[in-house]
Amino acid sequence: MQTGTDIDEVAGRAASAARPFAGTRPRDRAAALVAVADALDAAAAELIAIAMRETGLGEARLTGEVRRTTNQLRLFAEAIVDGAYLDARIDDADPGYVIGPRPDVRRVLEPVGPVLNFAASNFPFAFSVAGGDSAAALAAGCPLIVKAHSGHPDLSHRTGEVVAAALAGAGMPEGTFQVVAGQEAGVALLKDERIRAGAFTGSTHVGRLLADIAAARPRPIPFFGELGSVNPVYATAAAVSEDPELLRGFLASVAGSAGQLCTKPGFLFVPREVALGPVGETAASIAEHRLLNPGIGRAFEERRAAVLGAPGVTVLAEGGVRVDDAEQRFATPTVVEVDLATLREHRDELLEESFGPLSIIVRYDDASRLPEVQRELFPGNLTSTLHASDAELADGGFADLVEALAETSGRVLFGGWPTGVSVTSAMQHGGPYPATTNDSTSVGTAAITRFLRAVAYQNAPQALLPPPLRDDNPWGVPQRRSAAGRSAGWGSLTGEH
Amino acid sequence: MQTGTDIDEVAGRAASAARPFAGTRPRDRAAALVAVADALDAAAAELIAIAMRETGLGEARLTGEVRRTTNQLRLFAEAIVDGAYLDARIDDADPGYVIGPRPDVRRVLEPVGPVLNFAASNFPFAFSVAGGDSAAALAAGCPLIVKAHSGHPDLSHRTGEVVAAALAGAGMPEGTFQVVAGQEAGVALLKDERIRAGAFTGSTHVGRLLADIAAARPRPIPFFGELGSVNPVYATAAAVSEDPELLRGFLASVAGSAGQLCTKPGFLFVPREVALGPVGETAASIAEHRLLNPGIGRAFEERRAAVLGAPGVTVLAEGGVRVDDAEQRFATPTVVEVDLATLREHRDELLEESFGPLSIIVRYDDASRLPEVQRELFPGNLTSTLHASDAELADGGFADLVEALAETSGRVLFGGWPTGVSVTSAMQHGGPYPATTNDSTSVGTAAITRFLRAVAYQNAPQALLPPPLRDDNPWGVPQRRSAAGRSAGWGSLTGEH
Repeated sequence: MQTGTDIDEVAGRAASAARPFAGTRPRDRAAALVAVADALDAAAAELIAIAMRETGLGEARLTGEVRRTTNQLRLFAEAIVDGAYLDARIDDADPGYVIGPRPDVRRVLEPVGPVLNFAASNFPFAFSVAGGDSAAALAAGCPLIVKAHSGHPDLSHRTGEVVAAALAGAGMPEGTFQVVAGQEAGVALLKDERIRAGAFTGSTHVGRLLADIAAARPRPIPFFGELGSVNPVYATAAAVSEDPELLRGFLASVAGSAGQLCTKPGFLFVPREVALGPVGETAASIAEHRLLNPGIGRAFEERRAAVLGAPGVTVLAEGGVRVDDAEQRFATPTVVEVDLATLREHRDELLEESFGPLSIIVRYDDASRLPEVQRELFPGNLTSTLHASDAELADGGFADLVEALAETSGRVLFGGWPTGVSVTSAMQHGGPYPATTNDSTSVGTAAITRFLRAVAYQNAPQALLPPPLRDDNPWGVPQRRSAAGRSAGWGSLTGEH
Repeated sequence: MQTGTDIDEVAGRAASAARPFAGTRPRDRAAALVAVADALDAAAAELIAIAMRETGLGEARLTGEVRRTTNQLRLFAEAIVDGAYLDARIDDADPGYVIGPRPDVRRVLEPVGPVLNFAASNFPFAFSVAGGDSAAALAAGCPLIVKAHSGHPDLSHRTGEVVAAALAGAGMPEGTFQVVAGQEAGVALLKDERIRAGAFTGSTHVGRLLADIAAARPRPIPFFGELGSVNPVYATAAAVSEDPELLRGFLASVAGSAGQLCTKPGFLFVPREVALGPVGETAASIAEHRLLNPGIGRAFEERRAAVLGAPGVTVLAEGGVRVDDAEQRFATPTVVEVDLATLREHRDELLEESFGPLSIIVRYDDASRLPEVQRELFPGNLTSTLHASDAELADGGFADLVEALAETSGRVLFGGWPTGVSVTSAMQHGGPYPATTNDSTSVGTAAITRFLRAVAYQNAPQALLPPPLRDDNPWGVPQRRSAAGRSAGWGSLTGEH
């Protein structure tokens, strides 16, 4: 990994790689992504052992995370190999075009150039050196610099070696992939003219700081930050009574990975009359789990104290935080209960994300007010969830609430818990600010478009067109063609489309 | 039009319209766009007369601009009517998914909410009240507030009336479309929490100011600004000698609409040996043309003086600026010549955009250095153009220069002049900063995506899905479906795609 002094060289290497890497065929980049996936799978045992030591996360969780990470790379390979992501459009020249004679215009998406990705602490594989943002940038054809998270330095270093070797072995250009360490290096690179886009997963505070730096550059760059989310869940009485495991499922989602997930349900809304008996009991049966690092541990301790100290809060499961000699914290889940009026009144203390195993159960009386509650208290979240009975939903019940959830969240779940994020082409892991800085997704294949820009070629000779725009279509990509003569029917809206 | 005091009401009306307008069917919004186009065509004579008085632009130019504007609305109608722009994706539930059991996930693009569009001065129709950004926002389903340009207040007011009446007549919700006036109103709205995106066409100075305001909001919003561009053109000796009209075409492009176009060629690079005889003579034959308003006239006067006063500049056509009693300026074209070394040395005086009929011809000796020149001097432009002979281009000649042009421009032209911007599905009217704030397009149907955000629905009952995501597909939109069982083949890259 690179530190302060040679940042200029790091940026220079990435810039030098931009053209050759952009020129690689999608099929070859796809093969390189698969090679990276295979190499990481081969090194999994070694990498997981380092991750366990550095993060305190368990072997089963980390094994699953490696599987997710390597298959995510394979999914991106699949997503680019046919070239559909290039959105190739060809408008044939049309002397009779209604707006005036139309030249031959062809448009394709090209990589934006070097991308800087700030890795997260809580997913040492899936949102770190070889994680989703990295896969998306490499798939798009952008040289990548990862700013490693200080929470797992050895793992970042070793993962970086494996990735770099695999990319080089697959024939990708020198400088395609680099890892740097240290906040200073990250900020210096974010300000560097040669960096063309930033990605980040972490806290709202740090994310906003970096987003502001990106926006204030002489030449601003897009900055795709995934920041904070409290992921409200709404449950009806019928849902709780139909599913005796619902409250246990909630606790499992709150306590998994010690609650250190961006999609942890931070609020569960239930009607006043629902019995919460199982919550305290179930929480007490959950074993303590180490927090990722001393900094996160301290922050969770403070946040937990603020919630417990807020007026009108009833403790359902007190939980606790134990500190060891190395300043590591070990937590058991804390769950409290408030009524809606109290939450509104003390929103400054209660609404902030608690990064750790803590959640707030909110009692409500009138389900018809929930859309307004969501819009008022939760304007920007990665997810929101509705648990209602099949009978309640069958005829489009709760449509107003669903509309409010969709307006304020990137993903709306019906049943289940938000902490499982499937990596698919339809996944949206984003949401209005502060869930993300710009309501884009950092999971799923749609994440590629963040690192692409469009270029149109007008009346270009075939030999000078990028391959996806040529008439002979050497890469066999899907081309959307607008033939001449079609504009005559505009305005009738009855023609073929 | 609304001014300062009732801005809160304007934002409130737009916010109230957001849900009902988002809920309209694409087909009905398309019909409304066509109704707007028809109404503007019907009012064209009246509107053009106002525009001539307020802008000094000629009747032929304005007639063409109305045609472009109304057909642009019809093009957007065509672009949304089949629902392809919604990018509907459906991942079927897949218990055998390689990353772990996959739920049913469906993703669609939804409107971002109220959009604020700052109209331009130089296209009183095509980039103003009913212009491209307006068409894109309405097509996307976003309530629109246009901040009228002070250069054509009566036209903005009257256009606004025509558009609002047509939208209301087509059944679009109250509050879908509003026009406001005044810088203060524009800034207040840009800061208003209810506004979810901004669009702008104008100067780099004002555009950056507004972009910074949008980025600094407690909840930042995307701001799509089209700012400055000098649109370099490169011509070889062979191109000039093959096309005796080339230099005349250049002057027509520089002088059209008094050079007040974002795509005016501000620089023409020609080899040292090319004779420039016709330039002075042709320029002298071009009649004077009023500049849009006194402010733009004064700025052009100053900019012209700075260019003429720069060391090493040779005057080919002096042109001039005449002032009348109403402080309006009337200009004839100014063309100067410098060598490349002088341009590099005096870049601070010479590189800035001259908004008016002025262009700089740059003499070069070594064509192989042009890629480096483009990257160094013109890192962000709407367009760049290469004039070379067919023989020079036939075997992919100038590939390095074309690569540099594509990296630094939104549109690369081969022959012709950049001032004609066709409105098509493949058009890209954007480019790296400062051409635009974020390298997106403000012309062509791809402009719609700026005003859309994605939402994923997980395990949703059919009755609560948006129509484009339902299995019965009531709107008949294209749906991209990922069936279960396909992930087993990942990594082989040999399967069907």
